[in-house]
Amino acid sequence: MILLKARLGMELPPINKALDNAVKALHPSVQPVARHIFDAGGKRLRPLLVVLMARLLGCTDNRVYELAVCMEMLHAATLLHDDVLDNADSRRGHPAAHTLFGVTPTILAGDALLATANGLVARFDDPALCRCFSAATSQTAAGEILEIASQHQVNVTAETYDAIIRGKTAWLIRASCEMGALYAGGNVMQVAAAADYGENVGMAFQLVDDALDFADSAVTGKPSGGDVREGKLTPPLRLYRQHLSPAERTSFDTAFAKGLFSEEDASRIGEAIRRQGFDAKARDEAQDYLDRALMALDRLPQCREQDVLREMTNYVRDRKK
Amino acid sequence: MILLKARLGMELPPINKALDNAVKALHPSVQPVARHIFDAGGKRLRPLLVVLMARLLGCTDNRVYELAVCMEMLHAATLLHDDVLDNADSRRGHPAAHTLFGVTPTILAGDALLATANGLVARFDDPALCRCFSAATSQTAAGEILEIASQHQVNVTAETYDAIIRGKTAWLIRASCEMGALYAGGNVMQVAAAADYGENVGMAFQLVDDALDFADSAVTGKPSGGDVREGKLTPPLRLYRQHLSPAERTSFDTAFAKGLFSEEDASRIGEAIRRQGFDAKARDEAQDYLDRALMALDRLPQCREQDVLREMTNYVRDRKK
Repeated sequence: MILLKARLGMELPPINKALDNAVKALHPSVQPVARHIFDAGGKRLRPLLVVLMARLLGCTDNRVYELAVCMEMLHAATLLHDDVLDNADSRRGHPAAHTLFGVTPTILAGDALLATANGLVARFDDPALCRCFSAATSQTAAGEILEIASQHQVNVTAETYDAIIRGKTAWLIRASCEMGALYAGGNVMQVAAAADYGENVGMAFQLVDDALDFADSAVTGKPSGGDVREGKLTPPLRLYRQHLSPAERTSFDTAFAKGLFSEEDASRIGEAIRRQGFDAKARDEAQDYLDRALMALDRLPQCREQDVLREMTNYVRDRKK
Repeated sequence: MILLKARLGMELPPINKALDNAVKALHPSVQPVARHIFDAGGKRLRPLLVVLMARLLGCTDNRVYELAVCMEMLHAATLLHDDVLDNADSRRGHPAAHTLFGVTPTILAGDALLATANGLVARFDDPALCRCFSAATSQTAAGEILEIASQHQVNVTAETYDAIIRGKTAWLIRASCEMGALYAGGNVMQVAAAADYGENVGMAFQLVDDALDFADSAVTGKPSGGDVREGKLTPPLRLYRQHLSPAERTSFDTAFAKGLFSEEDASRIGEAIRRQGFDAKARDEAQDYLDRALMALDRLPQCREQDVLREMTNYVRDRKK
């Protein structure tokens, strides 16, 4: 990952500077909430993809950073609202914003980030960029809505799960790549290839996330099996459930439907999932998506950025937390 | 108000039909929340203004209804989030959405309405429409944020109050007029006049609302003085406070800061405000804004719609609930 790390080191300062400028434009009363979520870390994956895709297609100007951070702002807005909705205690190893600032400022900060990002995109005066951004907003919201409607249901199909993660995770990563390509003035085929790369990377990203949810807490430093407690039937969990005896499955289903799993239950299920290799199966599925992402990449010009984006698929596959 | 009523009777069916189509495009799990807020009534003032301004400037097509309802969707999204933030029990005489559907579906329905409206506007392929819509989103959010930051503070200045209502109410009404003018292809002067009309009507609308908050509950059918209980220092209340004796003011300030007013206290304050004519003073101030709106209207072509928009200023001034 030498190329990716070197490039990230180069791109992070201008990305963070553009983000800082955008935060300063928010109302003072919501700035601390926005700062909290941005300072808590995050990989800046989405703005990085905007910039890389734009550079890959020949963009040389630096206004691209202003556009790129809109995707991080949209991402942060959804995280703020999600944490309130999930009543989550922590995010990225830090206390969740609403536990520090209260529910009202957190919801408002999300609304303000989204509105500001929307305004920043509109200032570029290009309807295609506006459409791309608003599709990302809609699809992400739709994915979240579907996820919440599906929580604690054992009969969620693989197709529904696919629709959930395509909406809540993959679309925003897709839109980031698409936006970079659009901004650079890529032709229809190039924009489609960029979108294709992003959507497949996004699907893989979420599948790996779902596998990591059951990783050993000694390795990740966070409790294992949050998804089972929140009633999310991710692929490792669907496989686990399928392999239970009928009697075990009945008691699993009751606890899953009612959200009765303790931290110990979740840790035990995580262990069983790792032992039976169901998390590895999700990573295999992720690899299929990454292979498709690499094929999409081959339809784009050969250059340094193409190499970095190739390396990124390794990063998505291999990350340990 | 003969012209306004007749025109409303003509425009409501296509507006409600376009709204219905937009709701049908939402995810099934949030449709009931959206239907609830739209079925609970509302005057459809914002889409009506989009349509009237577009017609005034020569627009003859009916796609304008699709654009017009985006403003009602943005309005509904803010109402849904506001009711959650204010923990309000009712809205437009019906139970508030979150009391029926829960906080999570209500926040998500707001997010989905905003995202969908944003997408509908983007489909018109005109950056000016996107900018107009996103400015409305940002300014409305900024107004709400400022209002919440100012709650329960007795030292809120008239300037801050002005900034609050210009954001939370006037901007969306301004943007509705601006959007109609932009869609019709109005020239720069006409778009500015339309925006000017809308902003002034919006300011007047909120001032009358603030006066009505202290109206006799026997007339309005709802408790008087909600604003004093929520710690909102609106103009009638600022005047009331200024006319208290120093001792009375000290005890008012304590109760206001701590949100200690009972329904009886609020009703008593409402009575005093009406007796001393402080609500009438807010209506006078509203009239100043309406006069400015009428002057802006004179800068636009003389036609049927101009007459309807002139009548609308009477409606805003005279409404009793």
